[in-house]
Amino acid sequence: MPQPSQLAKAARRYLPILDWGRSYDRDTLTNDLVAAVIVTIMLIPQSLAYALLAGLPPEMGLYASILPLVAYAIFGTSRALAVGPVAVVSLMTAAAVGSIAEQGSIGYATAAITLAFMSGAFLLLLGIFRLGFLANFLSHPVIAGFITASGLLIATSQLKHLFGISADGHSLIGLVVSLVENLGSTNVLTLIIGASSVAFLFWVRKGLKPLLLKRGLSPRMADVLAKAGPVAAVAFWTLATWALGLSGWGGVAIVGSVPQGIPPFTLPSADPELWSQLALAAVLISIIGFVESVSVAKTLAAKRRQRITPDQELIGLGASNIAAAVSGGYPVTGGFARSVVNFDAGAETPAAGAFTAVGILLAALILTPLLYFLPKAVLAATIVVAVLSLVDFSILKRAWSYSRVDFAAVAATILLTLGFGVEIGVSAGVALSIGLFLYKTSRPHVAEVGLVPETQHFRNIKRHKVDTDPSLLTIRIDESLYFANAAFLQDIILARVAGEQPIRNIVLMCSAVNEIDLSALESLEEINKRLQEMGIALHLSEVKGPVMDRLKRSHFLDELSGEVFLSQYDAYRKLTPGLMPPAVDRAAAAE
Amino acid sequence: MPQPSQLAKAARRYLPILDWGRSYDRDTLTNDLVAAVIVTIMLIPQSLAYALLAGLPPEMGLYASILPLVAYAIFGTSRALAVGPVAVVSLMTAAAVGSIAEQGSIGYATAAITLAFMSGAFLLLLGIFRLGFLANFLSHPVIAGFITASGLLIATSQLKHLFGISADGHSLIGLVVSLVENLGSTNVLTLIIGASSVAFLFWVRKGLKPLLLKRGLSPRMADVLAKAGPVAAVAFWTLATWALGLSGWGGVAIVGSVPQGIPPFTLPSADPELWSQLALAAVLISIIGFVESVSVAKTLAAKRRQRITPDQELIGLGASNIAAAVSGGYPVTGGFARSVVNFDAGAETPAAGAFTAVGILLAALILTPLLYFLPKAVLAATIVVAVLSLVDFSILKRAWSYSRVDFAAVAATILLTLGFGVEIGVSAGVALSIGLFLYKTSRPHVAEVGLVPETQHFRNIKRHKVDTDPSLLTIRIDESLYFANAAFLQDIILARVAGEQPIRNIVLMCSAVNEIDLSALESLEEINKRLQEMGIALHLSEVKGPVMDRLKRSHFLDELSGEVFLSQYDAYRKLTPGLMPPAVDRAAAAE
Repeated sequence: MPQPSQLAKAARRYLPILDWGRSYDRDTLTNDLVAAVIVTIMLIPQSLAYALLAGLPPEMGLYASILPLVAYAIFGTSRALAVGPVAVVSLMTAAAVGSIAEQGSIGYATAAITLAFMSGAFLLLLGIFRLGFLANFLSHPVIAGFITASGLLIATSQLKHLFGISADGHSLIGLVVSLVENLGSTNVLTLIIGASSVAFLFWVRKGLKPLLLKRGLSPRMADVLAKAGPVAAVAFWTLATWALGLSGWGGVAIVGSVPQGIPPFTLPSADPELWSQLALAAVLISIIGFVESVSVAKTLAAKRRQRITPDQELIGLGASNIAAAVSGGYPVTGGFARSVVNFDAGAETPAAGAFTAVGILLAALILTPLLYFLPKAVLAATIVVAVLSLVDFSILKRAWSYSRVDFAAVAATILLTLGFGVEIGVSAGVALSIGLFLYKTSRPHVAEVGLVPETQHFRNIKRHKVDTDPSLLTIRIDESLYFANAAFLQDIILARVAGEQPIRNIVLMCSAVNEIDLSALESLEEINKRLQEMGIALHLSEVKGPVMDRLKRSHFLDELSGEVFLSQYDAYRKLTPGLMPPAVDRAAAAE
Repeated sequence: MPQPSQLAKAARRYLPILDWGRSYDRDTLTNDLVAAVIVTIMLIPQSLAYALLAGLPPEMGLYASILPLVAYAIFGTSRALAVGPVAVVSLMTAAAVGSIAEQGSIGYATAAITLAFMSGAFLLLLGIFRLGFLANFLSHPVIAGFITASGLLIATSQLKHLFGISADGHSLIGLVVSLVENLGSTNVLTLIIGASSVAFLFWVRKGLKPLLLKRGLSPRMADVLAKAGPVAAVAFWTLATWALGLSGWGGVAIVGSVPQGIPPFTLPSADPELWSQLALAAVLISIIGFVESVSVAKTLAAKRRQRITPDQELIGLGASNIAAAVSGGYPVTGGFARSVVNFDAGAETPAAGAFTAVGILLAALILTPLLYFLPKAVLAATIVVAVLSLVDFSILKRAWSYSRVDFAAVAATILLTLGFGVEIGVSAGVALSIGLFLYKTSRPHVAEVGLVPETQHFRNIKRHKVDTDPSLLTIRIDESLYFANAAFLQDIILARVAGEQPIRNIVLMCSAVNEIDLSALESLEEINKRLQEMGIALHLSEVKGPVMDRLKRSHFLDELSGEVFLSQYDAYRKLTPGLMPPAVDRAAAAE
């Protein structure tokens, strides 16, 4: 077989479809088709509802569920991830675009399209330069807090549709105040439709599946029927509104006319001012979307012992968002609930996503006229029921009991998201977790250690019964030495030796020192000089290979008043002769 | 003796003058007075020159050298630090204020006063909340690079005064282009004055002192005379310009009328827009000024075995800047050269600073009319000669040979400062050093370790000859486990065990793990679960006290498939029975 050329290799890397496409057979096709039908049924009302949440016309939700899915099928590596509009990203889109353009204006839709394009371009860049690791700086607790707070915000933002009133605001308090102010103009009929839909959907979620199973349906069939709950609510209330004329005499807000046809060709705005206004939002949406998507994809892949490639996922999601931007959509990512449904329904390859796209395309071609009388309250009900499952405050309890620092990051993320909106909330969460980490590393834990008797092991003298010698001070610094703690190290050591007469030798035990940067090296040189002036020798022990390599490139080892020991035990034996076992070691020392 | 009350304690902390003031005697007074006279002689031309550099009228330089020195004498802890206008802070003031107001306008002076006030308030806040450690995030190499680049920028910015032309720009290229464009209108007389002053001052610096010593002067007297070089140049050229009427027929730019009298009472602007425009500059000036000042103060204190208190230094410098703001000055900090002079001249307490303030006050009252004919080119010459000693590119070489990461931070700081000005340069330097640190910790060094024969010590199998067992994999992670590397850890371990049949036990050696945050804990739980599914037990060894305390508060230890060993040697003995020393340990195992 000929060696594959560079080009073919690159194609393989960037086009996972070449991989799974070759072994595609009839069985796989059947499984993918079944999964696609189920996901399509679930995705139609979701697409409409999330577009409503994003403040966009409903057809943009459908458009965002067509071409982006095809793009992901070509470039994505997850076999089960279902891409499309999702709740949190829709909320973030509304927050970003809402502060720039009036909802309903052409500028609003253009800004959403531009946001999708920017987000796609950013994801592609991250993927091409293999910068997926950047997402790791969003810590789990911060994400959990952010998702919980977003769920609450989203549910609250939909209450206006359930009451048939208008309300506005990007913070929880703003929303609630605005809701309460307008509560007087509640449309009772809308409230009935909304409340009954919420109740019905909760029942479908909790009560229907067990009932169907009891009636003898297969678990898979029961699942499919339970997922069709929103479709049933949509169909029932659309029919009822049409038949009874509820939108006329009852004043029930309806979706209205939805354009029929294939997605339009659209282009993002080239206005640099718009780009700079949307830049932060695009970055945040990209990263949040990527992190959520990858965590779903990883979980599902692990269940079938498959692997996903995070850097290629960036390219897949980037392509999806650019596809959304050129086909009248808005930012998309992998959805949690629908990916699980896709997986459970038996999807085997990303082709299932492409088939789903065909299903949604058919809906856009055929079903849109039927959506005219769909009450917005029903869509709001599907959102409320979907997002309340995101709200989970248990992370606060877990974080509190484990670590106050993690708790601070989660609590701040939740409070700031609720209080000031999604962008500030998640930015502050990231900044705070990084800041707290830096703070901790800038004042590291420092232990004086001694020898655990009858071993060669050294532990903290405050926690363990250990042997020590008054002339020898061994300090274990539990952190890499770098600019932020270089001054701290100097202060600690010089304060420790001040006034203590018997100390002749200080050993810095470096087992936890993973790095010594130039600032810290200068500090060590200074410490060495000062100790030398006091007649104290400075030694190092257990310096790691990579750290030692670097020290050898500096003059520090020439200037060092003491030695570098391979192990702390060697240092201890050499520097406290009084404690040496008499027989063998004395002989060794006499050599 | 009665217990000192809380109030007295607080007074002692915040008013170091109460401490040294009590033992103040005639000898100390004499020493402080001598030092004050010498520093005053040095400070008069410097104050005028740095005001010129900051784009401010010369009297503001004098005002900035009066009340701020008194404030520092009351609140500062360094016995030798000489506060006042300095080159780098003057440049930063020019950059910040120059982008807001026209040079020479009232708005320009008000903005400089406001900047001093904001910087003072910020320093005070940092001091009161003991946040001085924040300055540690400015790494030594970044500061060194920044100072070098600033020195170059300052020297270049003064060339226009030496040539008697106008030029503008905040970047090196901008300045040079502007200079070259205007070179045609060079004033030859000005150039002669400027160039001869530069040559004279360099000669004073390098050649005069040895000459004086050879002539039999005492080293101290020689030093004082050498420091008076700028005063001599100022006096000579002022006289010559007056006598020959150079400013008239020759067109030599002169300082002009300088108001005579005590500093005026001024107030910062209360315009919130101005505050928000100056905020970043105020923060940067505060931190740069503080870091420079503290490093000088620390060095000088160490020479006399004294101590300074960094958090109180923040209060001292904060008070100085607020004093500058209310008395017509602009941002000040501790100057390197003049502090060394102060120290060498024998200053024993901060009172020397107060006496210097009296000297400058006398100058403002009496000397200002004499400054009318002082050519600006002479002041520019004193600046050029002073700042060229700041320029030191050797940090680039040191950083390159020690660590590419440190080199990247220095090089970026220098290039960005030269290319885009001081604010962007130093901000980027800080951001880059933090970013690179985070990047390194997000992809930590991981070593497989084995037992160094005939010891209980474990080292990297790639670097040392060690014993291992195929059923036991010991991995030492050289980093704290936190959100940024939680996913990395999981990837590394699962990739390592994939396909390796004989591994039954994995030990994570945690001697370098100083922290396990909640994200990493979740990762460990996941790793434990996955390994368990593969029939591999996960163990930990050498977990540190603080980390263990926290793990005990979670459920992880209950779920852990393996054990936690005090030392790696215990783990090795227990998990590789084939390697146990036959006699004693077998018996122990049989128990």
